Amino acid sequence: MDLAAIRIIGIDPGLRNMGWGVIEVLGSRLAFVACGSVHSRVSLSLAERLRQLHEGLLGVISDLAPIEAAVEETFVNCDPQSALKLGQARGIALVAPALAGLPVAEYSANLIKKTVVGNGHAEKAQVALMVRFLLPKAEPESPDAADALAVAITHAQLRASRAMAKSLMTVRTSTR
Amino acid sequence: MDLAAIRIIGIDPGLRNMGWGVIEVLGSRLAFVACGSVHSRVSLSLAERLRQLHEGLLGVISDLAPIEAAVEETFVNCDPQSALKLGQARGIALVAPALAGLPVAEYSANLIKKTVVGNGHAEKAQVALMVRFLLPKAEPESPDAADALAVAITHAQLRASRAMAKSLMTVRTSTR
Repeated sequence: MDLAAIRIIGIDPGLRNMGWGVIEVLGSRLAFVACGSVHSRVSLSLAERLRQLHEGLLGVISDLAPIEAAVEETFVNCDPQSALKLGQARGIALVAPALAGLPVAEYSANLIKKTVVGNGHAEKAQVALMVRFLLPKAEPESPDAADALAVAITHAQLRASRAMAKSLMTVRTSTR
Repeated sequence: MDLAAIRIIGIDPGLRNMGWGVIEVLGSRLAFVACGSVHSRVSLSLAERLRQLHEGLLGVISDLAPIEAAVEETFVNCDPQSALKLGQARGIALVAPALAGLPVAEYSANLIKKTVVGNGHAEKAQVALMVRFLLPKAEPESPDAADALAVAITHAQLRASRAMAKSLMTVRTSTR
Protein backbone atom coordinates (compact mmCIF):
# COMPACT_ATOMS: atom_id res chain seq x y z
CA MET A 1 0.00 0.00 0.00
CA ASP A 2 1.18 3.53 -0.77
CA LEU A 3 1.96 5.25 2.54
CA ALA A 4 3.12 8.63 1.27
CA ALA A 5 0.89 11.46 2.55
CA ILE A 6 -1.56 12.66 -0.10
CA ARG A 7 -2.62 16.30 0.11
CA ILE A 8 -6.16 16.94 -1.12
CA ILE A 9 -8.09 20.14 -1.76
CA GLY A 10 -11.88 20.04 -1.51
CA ILE A 11 -13.89 22.83 -3.12
CA ASP A 12 -17.48 23.92 -2.49
CA PRO A 13 -18.43 26.09 -5.47
CA GLY A 14 -20.29 29.37 -5.08
CA LEU A 15 -20.22 32.70 -6.91
CA ARG A 16 -20.12 34.83 -3.78
CA ASN A 17 -18.07 32.50 -1.57
CA MET A 18 -16.01 29.61 -2.87
CA GLY A 19 -15.18 27.34 0.08
CA TRP A 20 -11.94 25.37 0.12
CA GLY A 21 -10.40 22.89 2.54
CA VAL A 22 -7.03 21.15 2.40
CA ILE A 23 -6.31 17.92 4.27
CA GLU A 24 -3.64 15.25 4.25
CA VAL A 25 -4.33 11.55 4.20
CA LEU A 26 -1.75 8.99 5.29
CA GLY A 27 -3.14 5.47 5.06
CA SER A 28 -6.45 5.75 6.94
CA ARG A 29 -5.38 8.79 8.99
CA LEU A 30 -6.63 12.25 8.10
CA ALA A 31 -4.97 15.53 9.09
CA PHE A 32 -6.24 19.07 8.74
CA VAL A 33 -4.01 21.49 6.82
CA ALA A 34 -6.05 24.67 6.23
CA CYS A 35 -9.44 25.90 5.08
CA GLY A 36 -11.16 29.13 4.11
CA SER A 37 -13.21 30.89 1.46
CA VAL A 38 -12.38 32.87 -1.62
CA HIS A 39 -14.78 35.77 -2.06
CA SER A 40 -15.90 37.76 -5.07
CA ARG A 41 -17.02 41.37 -4.80
CA VAL A 42 -20.72 41.69 -5.70
CA SER A 43 -20.18 45.19 -7.14
CA LEU A 44 -17.85 43.90 -9.89
CA SER A 45 -18.87 42.58 -13.31
CA LEU A 46 -19.49 38.84 -13.57
CA ALA A 47 -16.26 38.32 -15.54
CA GLU A 48 -14.26 40.18 -12.88
CA ARG A 49 -15.92 38.20 -10.07
CA LEU A 50 -15.02 34.94 -11.79
CA ARG A 51 -11.47 36.21 -12.24
CA GLN A 52 -11.25 36.96 -8.49
CA LEU A 53 -12.42 33.43 -7.66
CA HIS A 54 -10.05 31.90 -10.22
CA GLU A 55 -7.01 33.81 -8.98
CA GLY A 56 -7.96 33.19 -5.35
CA LEU A 57 -8.22 29.43 -5.89
CA LEU A 58 -4.99 29.29 -7.88
CA GLY A 59 -3.31 31.21 -5.03
CA VAL A 60 -4.48 28.64 -2.46
CA ILE A 61 -3.33 25.76 -4.69
CA SER A 62 0.05 27.37 -5.26
CA ASP A 63 0.54 28.11 -1.51
CA LEU A 64 -0.61 24.75 -0.13
CA ALA A 65 0.40 22.47 -3.02
CA PRO A 66 -2.35 19.83 -2.95
CA ILE A 67 -1.90 17.08 -5.53
CA GLU A 68 -5.52 15.99 -5.96
CA ALA A 69 -8.75 17.98 -6.02
CA ALA A 70 -12.40 17.17 -5.37
CA VAL A 71 -15.39 19.37 -6.13
CA GLU A 72 -18.94 19.05 -4.86
CA GLU A 73 -21.47 18.32 -7.60
CA THR A 74 -23.90 21.17 -7.37
CA PHE A 75 -27.43 20.01 -6.73
CA VAL A 76 -29.72 22.08 -8.89
CA ASN A 77 -33.34 21.99 -7.98
CA CYS A 78 -33.84 25.66 -8.72
CA ASP A 79 -34.83 27.92 -11.60
CA PRO A 80 -32.59 27.72 -14.71
CA GLN A 81 -31.25 31.25 -14.14
CA SER A 82 -29.87 30.35 -10.68
CA ALA A 83 -28.50 27.07 -12.06
CA LEU A 84 -26.68 29.03 -14.78
CA LYS A 85 -25.16 31.33 -12.12
CA LEU A 86 -24.03 28.39 -10.01
CA GLY A 87 -22.66 26.70 -13.13
CA GLN A 88 -20.43 29.68 -13.85
CA ALA A 89 -18.85 29.47 -10.39
CA ARG A 90 -18.60 25.70 -10.75
CA GLY A 91 -16.72 26.08 -14.04
CA ILE A 92 -14.06 28.04 -12.13
CA ALA A 93 -13.96 25.49 -9.27
CA LEU A 94 -13.23 22.74 -11.82
CA VAL A 95 -10.89 24.56 -14.19
CA ALA A 96 -8.58 26.20 -11.63
CA PRO A 97 -7.23 22.91 -10.16
CA ALA A 98 -7.19 21.33 -13.66
CA LEU A 99 -5.02 24.21 -14.93
CA ALA A 100 -2.71 23.62 -11.96
CA GLY A 101 -2.32 20.03 -13.18
CA LEU A 102 -4.40 18.32 -10.46
CA PRO A 103 -6.78 15.45 -11.23
CA VAL A 104 -10.27 16.65 -10.27
CA ALA A 105 -12.88 14.25 -8.84
CA GLU A 106 -16.55 15.13 -8.41
CA TYR A 107 -18.92 13.86 -5.72
CA SER A 108 -22.65 14.41 -5.30
CA ALA A 109 -23.91 16.07 -2.11
CA ASN A 110 -25.64 12.79 -1.18
CA LEU A 111 -22.47 10.74 -1.54
CA ILE A 112 -20.55 13.30 0.57
CA LYS A 113 -23.16 13.10 3.35
CA LYS A 114 -23.21 9.33 3.16
CA THR A 115 -19.40 9.09 3.31
CA VAL A 116 -18.89 11.65 6.08
CA VAL A 117 -21.97 11.05 8.27
CA GLY A 118 -23.15 7.61 7.07
CA ASN A 119 -26.50 8.97 5.89
CA GLY A 120 -27.13 10.47 2.44
CA HIS A 121 -29.86 12.68 3.82
CA ALA A 122 -27.94 14.04 6.81
CA GLU A 123 -28.47 17.65 7.88
CA LYS A 124 -25.82 20.30 7.17
CA ALA A 125 -25.15 20.60 10.94
CA GLN A 126 -24.43 16.85 11.24
CA VAL A 127 -21.90 17.11 8.40
CA ALA A 128 -20.18 20.07 10.13
CA LEU A 129 -20.11 18.08 13.41
CA MET A 130 -18.49 15.05 11.74
CA VAL A 131 -15.96 17.29 9.98
CA ARG A 132 -14.93 18.68 13.38
CA PHE A 133 -14.80 15.13 14.82
CA LEU A 134 -12.65 13.78 11.97
CA LEU A 135 -10.44 16.89 11.81
CA PRO A 136 -10.26 18.16 15.42
CA LYS A 137 -7.80 20.90 14.51
CA ALA A 138 -10.11 22.42 11.89
CA GLU A 139 -12.06 25.53 12.82
CA PRO A 140 -13.90 26.37 9.60
CA GLU A 141 -14.75 30.07 9.54
CA SER A 142 -17.80 29.50 7.34
CA PRO A 143 -20.24 26.79 6.22
CA ASP A 144 -18.58 26.83 2.76
CA ALA A 145 -15.19 25.99 4.26
CA ALA A 146 -16.75 23.17 6.34
CA ASP A 147 -18.48 21.82 3.22
CA ALA A 148 -15.21 21.96 1.31
CA LEU A 149 -13.50 19.92 4.06
CA ALA A 150 -16.34 17.38 3.80
CA VAL A 151 -15.64 17.06 0.05
CA ALA A 152 -11.93 16.54 0.76
CA ILE A 153 -12.71 13.88 3.42
CA THR A 154 -15.02 12.11 0.96
CA HIS A 155 -12.30 12.01 -1.66
CA ALA A 156 -9.75 10.76 0.90
CA GLN A 157 -12.02 7.91 1.99
CA LEU A 158 -13.24 6.90 -1.46
CA ARG A 159 -9.77 7.02 -3.03
CA ALA A 160 -8.56 4.72 -0.21
CA SER A 161 -11.34 2.19 -0.98
CA ARG A 162 -10.56 2.41 -4.67
CA ALA A 163 -6.84 1.82 -3.98
CA MET A 164 -7.69 -1.17 -1.76
CA ALA A 165 -10.02 -2.69 -4.36
CA LYS A 166 -7.30 -2.24 -6.97
CA SER A 167 -4.59 -3.88 -4.81
CA LEU A 168 -6.93 -6.80 -4.00
CA MET A 169 -7.54 -7.30 -7.71
CA THR A 170 -3.79 -7.25 -8.34
CA VAL A 171 -3.22 -9.87 -5.62
CA ARG A 172 -5.99 -12.05 -7.05
CA THR A 173 -4.58 -11.75 -10.57
CA SER A 174 -1.01 -12.50 -9.48
CA THR A 175 -1.97 -15.61 -7.41
CA ARG A 176 -3.84 -17.20 -10.31
CA MET B 1 -13.60 60.74 -31.91
CA ASP B 2 -11.13 57.94 -31.36
CA LEU B 3 -10.08 56.59 -34.76
CA ALA B 4 -7.63 53.93 -33.66
CA ALA B 5 -8.76 50.47 -34.77
CA ILE B 6 -10.26 48.49 -31.90
CA ARG B 7 -9.91 44.71 -32.07
CA ILE B 8 -12.80 42.82 -30.48
CA ILE B 9 -13.32 39.14 -29.71
CA GLY B 10 -16.89 37.83 -29.53
CA ILE B 11 -17.52 34.52 -27.79
CA ASP B 12 -20.49 32.17 -28.06
CA PRO B 13 -20.24 29.85 -25.03
CA GLY B 14 -20.79 26.11 -25.28
CA LEU B 15 -19.29 23.09 -23.54
CA ARG B 16 -18.73 21.08 -26.72
CA ASN B 17 -17.94 23.96 -29.08
CA MET B 18 -16.98 27.44 -27.96
CA GLY B 19 -17.39 29.79 -30.92
CA TRP B 20 -15.12 32.82 -31.26
CA GLY B 21 -14.88 35.63 -33.78
CA VAL B 22 -12.41 38.51 -33.97
CA ILE B 23 -13.16 41.73 -35.84
CA GLU B 24 -11.68 45.22 -36.04
CA VAL B 25 -13.70 48.38 -35.83
CA LEU B 26 -12.40 51.71 -37.15
CA GLY B 27 -14.98 54.45 -36.71
CA SER B 28 -18.11 52.90 -38.21
CA ARG B 29 -16.22 50.45 -40.44
CA LEU B 30 -15.97 46.79 -39.49
CA ALA B 31 -13.32 44.36 -40.72
CA PHE B 32 -13.14 40.60 -40.31
CA VAL B 33 -9.98 39.23 -38.69
CA ALA B 34 -10.62 35.54 -37.95
CA CYS B 35 -13.14 33.15 -36.48
CA GLY B 36 -13.42 29.54 -35.39
CA SER B 37 -14.39 27.20 -32.57
CA VAL B 38 -12.55 25.74 -29.63
CA HIS B 39 -13.64 22.18 -29.01
CA SER B 40 -13.61 19.97 -25.93
CA ARG B 41 -13.31 16.21 -26.16
CA VAL B 42 -16.50 14.54 -24.87
CA SER B 43 -14.54 11.54 -23.58
CA LEU B 44 -12.59 13.66 -21.06
CA SER B 45 -13.68 14.57 -17.52
CA LEU B 46 -15.62 17.81 -17.13
CA ALA B 47 -12.63 19.54 -15.50
CA GLU B 48 -10.36 18.50 -18.40
CA ARG B 49 -12.93 19.65 -20.97
CA LEU B 50 -13.14 23.06 -19.30
CA ARG B 51 -9.33 23.21 -19.26
CA GLN B 52 -9.27 22.53 -23.03
CA LEU B 53 -11.74 25.35 -23.66
CA HIS B 54 -9.87 27.69 -21.33
CA GLU B 55 -6.49 27.03 -22.92
CA GLY B 56 -7.96 27.19 -26.42
CA LEU B 57 -9.55 30.58 -25.78
CA LEU B 58 -6.40 31.96 -24.15
CA GLY B 59 -4.44 30.75 -27.19
CA VAL B 60 -6.75 32.63 -29.58
CA ILE B 61 -6.54 35.78 -27.41
CA SER B 62 -2.77 35.56 -27.24
CA ASP B 63 -2.42 34.98 -31.03
CA LEU B 64 -4.88 37.63 -32.21
CA ALA B 65 -4.49 40.19 -29.40
CA PRO B 66 -8.03 41.60 -29.14
CA ILE B 67 -8.36 44.39 -26.55
CA GLU B 68 -12.05 44.04 -25.73
CA ALA B 69 -14.30 40.99 -25.36
CA ALA B 70 -18.02 40.36 -25.60
CA VAL B 71 -19.89 37.23 -24.57
CA GLU B 72 -23.40 36.16 -25.45
CA GLU B 73 -25.70 35.98 -22.44
CA THR B 74 -26.91 32.42 -22.48
CA PHE B 75 -30.66 32.17 -22.72
CA VAL B 76 -31.79 29.46 -20.36
CA ASN B 77 -35.25 28.19 -20.86
CA CYS B 78 -34.27 24.62 -20.15
CA ASP B 79 -34.02 22.21 -17.24
CA PRO B 80 -31.71 23.29 -14.38
CA GLN B 81 -29.23 20.49 -15.18
CA SER B 82 -28.65 21.78 -18.73
CA ALA B 83 -28.47 25.36 -17.44
CA LEU B 84 -25.77 24.26 -14.98
CA LYS B 85 -23.79 22.66 -17.82
CA LEU B 86 -24.05 25.75 -20.00
CA GLY B 87 -23.10 27.89 -17.01
CA GLN B 88 -19.87 25.96 -16.58
CA ALA B 89 -18.84 26.69 -20.18
CA ARG B 90 -19.98 30.28 -19.78
CA GLY B 91 -17.76 30.68 -16.71
CA ILE B 92 -14.78 29.84 -18.92
CA ALA B 93 -15.95 32.16 -21.74
CA LEU B 94 -16.02 35.04 -19.23
CA VAL B 95 -12.95 34.29 -17.14
CA ALA B 96 -10.47 33.57 -19.97
CA PRO B 97 -10.60 37.10 -21.49
CA ALA B 98 -10.80 38.65 -18.00
CA LEU B 99 -7.58 36.81 -17.02
CA ALA B 100 -5.99 38.17 -20.22
CA GLY B 101 -6.82 41.68 -18.97
CA LEU B 102 -9.68 42.41 -21.41
CA PRO B 103 -12.86 44.19 -20.34
CA VAL B 104 -15.74 41.76 -20.95
CA ALA B 105 -19.18 42.97 -22.04
CA GLU B 106 -22.30 40.77 -22.09
CA TYR B 107 -25.23 40.99 -24.48
CA SER B 108 -28.49 39.09 -24.53
CA ALA B 109 -29.39 37.02 -27.59
CA ASN B 110 -32.30 39.39 -28.26
CA LEU B 111 -30.10 42.48 -28.20
CA ILE B 112 -27.62 40.78 -30.55
CA LYS B 113 -30.38 39.92 -33.03
CA LYS B 114 -31.82 43.42 -32.76
CA THR B 115 -28.42 45.04 -33.33
CA VAL B 116 -27.30 42.81 -36.18
CA VAL B 117 -30.59 42.18 -38.00
CA GLY B 118 -32.82 44.94 -36.62
CA ASN B 119 -35.28 42.47 -35.12
CA GLY B 120 -34.92 40.92 -31.64
CA HIS B 121 -36.78 37.81 -32.77
CA ALA B 122 -34.81 37.20 -35.98
CA GLU B 123 -34.06 33.62 -37.05
CA LYS B 124 -30.55 32.18 -36.70
CA ALA B 125 -30.23 32.07 -40.52
CA GLN B 126 -30.99 35.79 -40.81
CA VAL B 127 -28.27 36.57 -38.27
CA ALA B 128 -25.77 34.45 -40.24
CA LEU B 129 -26.77 36.24 -43.47
CA MET B 130 -26.24 39.67 -41.93
CA VAL B 131 -22.89 38.59 -40.49
CA ARG B 132 -21.79 37.61 -44.01
CA PHE B 133 -23.14 40.91 -45.37
CA LEU B 134 -21.36 43.03 -42.74
CA LEU B 135 -18.15 40.97 -42.89
CA PRO B 136 -17.87 39.78 -46.53
CA LYS B 137 -14.49 38.20 -45.92
CA ALA B 138 -15.78 35.98 -43.10
CA GLU B 139 -16.48 32.37 -43.87
CA PRO B 140 -17.54 30.97 -40.51
CA GLU B 141 -16.93 27.21 -40.44
CA SER B 142 -19.73 26.65 -37.91
CA PRO B 143 -22.88 28.27 -36.48
CA ASP B 144 -20.97 28.91 -33.21
CA ALA B 145 -18.32 30.93 -35.05
CA ALA B 146 -21.02 32.92 -36.92
CA ASP B 147 -22.81 33.59 -33.59
CA ALA B 148 -19.54 34.74 -32.04
CA LEU B 149 -19.01 37.20 -34.91
CA ALA B 150 -22.56 38.50 -34.31
CA VAL B 151 -21.63 39.13 -30.64
CA ALA B 152 -18.47 40.99 -31.72
CA ILE B 153 -20.47 43.11 -34.23
CA THR B 154 -23.01 43.94 -31.51
CA HIS B 155 -20.26 45.10 -29.20
CA ALA B 156 -18.65 47.16 -31.98
CA GLN B 157 -21.91 48.93 -32.77
CA LEU B 158 -23.06 49.47 -29.19
CA ARG B 159 -19.65 50.68 -27.98
CA ALA B 160 -19.71 53.23 -30.83
CA SER B 161 -23.12 54.54 -29.70
CA ARG B 162 -21.92 54.64 -26.10
CA ALA B 163 -18.79 56.55 -27.14
CA MET B 164 -20.89 59.01 -29.14
CA ALA B 165 -23.34 59.53 -26.27
CA LYS B 166 -20.39 60.14 -23.96
CA SER B 167 -18.75 62.66 -26.30
CA LEU B 168 -22.08 64.50 -26.73
CA MET B 169 -22.41 64.68 -22.95
CA THR B 170 -18.88 66.05 -22.68
CA VAL B 171 -19.65 68.72 -25.30
CA ARG B 172 -22.85 69.65 -23.50
CA THR B 173 -21.04 69.88 -20.15
CA SER B 174 -18.17 71.94 -21.53
CA THR B 175 -20.45 74.47 -23.29
CA ARG B 176 -22.43 75.20 -20.14
